[in-house]
Amino acid sequence: MFRPLAMAKQVFHYGRMRDDLRIDGERLSSRLEKLAERGALPGGGVCRLALSDDDRAGRDLVVGWMRALGLEVSVDAIGNVVGVRAGLEEGPPVMMGSHIDTVRTGGRYDGNLGVMAGLEVLATLHDAGLVTRRPLAVAFFTNEEGSRFQPDMMGSLVFTGGLPLGEALATVGIDGSTVGENLARIGYAGPAPVGSPKVHAYVELHIEQGPVLEAEGFTIGAVEGVQGISWTELTLTGQSNHAGTTPMRLRHDAGYVAAEIAVFARRLAKEIGGEQVATVGALSLSPNLVNVVANRVVMTVDLRNTDEERLQEAERRLFAFAEVTAAAEGVTLQRRSLARFEPVAFTPHLVARVEGIASELGLSVRRLPSGAGHDAQMLARVCPACMIFVPSTRGVSHNVEEYTAPAELAAGANVLLRLVLELAA
Amino acid sequence: MFRPLAMAKQVFHYGRMRDDLRIDGERLSSRLEKLAERGALPGGGVCRLALSDDDRAGRDLVVGWMRALGLEVSVDAIGNVVGVRAGLEEGPPVMMGSHIDTVRTGGRYDGNLGVMAGLEVLATLHDAGLVTRRPLAVAFFTNEEGSRFQPDMMGSLVFTGGLPLGEALATVGIDGSTVGENLARIGYAGPAPVGSPKVHAYVELHIEQGPVLEAEGFTIGAVEGVQGISWTELTLTGQSNHAGTTPMRLRHDAGYVAAEIAVFARRLAKEIGGEQVATVGALSLSPNLVNVVANRVVMTVDLRNTDEERLQEAERRLFAFAEVTAAAEGVTLQRRSLARFEPVAFTPHLVARVEGIASELGLSVRRLPSGAGHDAQMLARVCPACMIFVPSTRGVSHNVEEYTAPAELAAGANVLLRLVLELAA
Repeated sequence: MFRPLAMAKQVFHYGRMRDDLRIDGERLSSRLEKLAERGALPGGGVCRLALSDDDRAGRDLVVGWMRALGLEVSVDAIGNVVGVRAGLEEGPPVMMGSHIDTVRTGGRYDGNLGVMAGLEVLATLHDAGLVTRRPLAVAFFTNEEGSRFQPDMMGSLVFTGGLPLGEALATVGIDGSTVGENLARIGYAGPAPVGSPKVHAYVELHIEQGPVLEAEGFTIGAVEGVQGISWTELTLTGQSNHAGTTPMRLRHDAGYVAAEIAVFARRLAKEIGGEQVATVGALSLSPNLVNVVANRVVMTVDLRNTDEERLQEAERRLFAFAEVTAAAEGVTLQRRSLARFEPVAFTPHLVARVEGIASELGLSVRRLPSGAGHDAQMLARVCPACMIFVPSTRGVSHNVEEYTAPAELAAGANVLLRLVLELAA
Repeated sequence: MFRPLAMAKQVFHYGRMRDDLRIDGERLSSRLEKLAERGALPGGGVCRLALSDDDRAGRDLVVGWMRALGLEVSVDAIGNVVGVRAGLEEGPPVMMGSHIDTVRTGGRYDGNLGVMAGLEVLATLHDAGLVTRRPLAVAFFTNEEGSRFQPDMMGSLVFTGGLPLGEALATVGIDGSTVGENLARIGYAGPAPVGSPKVHAYVELHIEQGPVLEAEGFTIGAVEGVQGISWTELTLTGQSNHAGTTPMRLRHDAGYVAAEIAVFARRLAKEIGGEQVATVGALSLSPNLVNVVANRVVMTVDLRNTDEERLQEAERRLFAFAEVTAAAEGVTLQRRSLARFEPVAFTPHLVARVEGIASELGLSVRRLPSGAGHDAQMLARVCPACMIFVPSTRGVSHNVEEYTAPAELAAGANVLLRLVLELAA
């Protein structure tokens, strides 16, 4: 779709107008609310698992809004949906977006905000009669959550060439049916070639899903990158013994070694500092009885850092400590990698512009990494990319209690608007 | 039953004969083997839960052996069975004994050894034509293990006045039926008054159920007492958070606090030293996921010491550490006592005689505490009492692999024989 020539006049005023231009916060919140009605859970929250009937209902709603804004909508073979608003020139669009699938007990903001804010930016330009030089686009990518089909971020991974289409379509979900079957069933196996359109730059607005912005009183997060992730399962095998009759020096206590490792993980995160985090979230003792020394522990260690070298250092030190501590107790240690992703860095000048624009708008802003994975990290493989975070109340996410205040949603969308205008100018 | 007067001649030779007198190790092992056929498990080991049909079969076998040795058998209202061999004088007997019930996957030695060794001592005296001044007795007490009915050591507890008979009889077991019903069902609700006969002294031979004697190369343990026991359940409540997005400083990680407590428990045992042991054997995290900071941990701490003051010190220090560590992490702590028993000290001159007799017999001996509970600790409430330990291979007990070599069984029974002869002289 092309703007009529009559619109060109407005374009000349662009430089002045963009400073005053603001999105409509009420309209943004209203769209989020309407979308949350699709797959609404009885007590609040949303369940819109990827490619379910509720996901179809959500997709249909968003595609309707795209069409109402005059966007050219295309659906690719993995079900990614892109709505393009023409610019004064042809060429790859500046893309906004995220995903609209949710986890089983999700909220209304995770993912949805990035898509609804993209629509809101386009609606704002539409109302102002503004056309950008480059085309703009809003996209939502299939199955970002991975709650029904593994891996997560599937749509953007296929979009950017990280996963072959055939493999993605053949993926069997938790209910035994495939991605391909479900795409066909809900009518979202589209004709567009995977990876189209080419993207000039990608900007994703998202809730933080962590507590930092709220805790420190910032409205905007300029996301520097996505943490690298190292998940390891440790299996400790000692000897089951009577807790009363076995002197301390004769024990081979797998539970004790596990506790030492968990305490060390905390110490390690402190010592390495920076963005390093370390979590022992799962830990099971056998036989798990009050009066029996544990002969077996299976535990996980989750290490994350934005810096790959530091992350490797954390792994090395943790594994070395575990080896030495287990050996000293006469406990054997087995190690298995459950997941390993290197960190992703967002495009530095875009991160700087998020920071700069927020300041220009009078919004408090801090740089921070993303601890969770996002579609933006996949897009970063093929184009300049960045993310804007807004606060998550109490850091709660993947939860029906997920909440971000309307003023913060609007603040994030205004930063998005300004950045997109700059990128498309 | 009374010895004929013709036996009196032998009594005059007692002082000389007792130095050479030895039990018959093969007969002892043979009785243990036959008893283990009652409730034998297919792959080895024994299941003779208290007051089950298999327990009845075991009881019937032992009572038959008692009768064959000419003992006067009485059964009391809680099903304790006492076989008395008359002495030259009337009066309270010197009692040997233990229990013959087992845990669900038990061995053939725990408890059974004390009863079979008692029979073997009487058989040895019978063969030698010896009568002691005081009567001798062999007893087995009901439900020592507590695997079917709580509390454990029930029969000896009732025998010594620590638990009212009515309360014990009304105890409902794991299958919903009561102790009283099952005693009647298997024919062991006896007419003897609870607490009879009065006991002059009690000696219990038992396997160590721990690794100390084997590890240090001793054949005989002179048991100084039974450790005091403190079982505490700690419930830690923090906050569930994303393991990637939540900086370390903002966490309220119940799992981390639990690990610190478990590590401290080990340190505490080392610092207090002596016989202090500390075990975190049970620990459950919620939600127990690799990428979620645990919001809840329920864990147990098992503290034991032979010294009540030291045990209280251990409790104080552990609880104080838990409070401080939880508070520093913003985690709440709830504490619930699951069990608390003060230490029991066996009669010092009997412990000294176990040590002395073992040495006189050329057997290596060391003093040690019992980490497990035994009927002897109940009998210690009403008479001089002590225990003799023999090694448990690898410290394994409450397990089908429980094993003590025949020579060690015989060594323990010979110490028992000599001590009983001294006490009954």
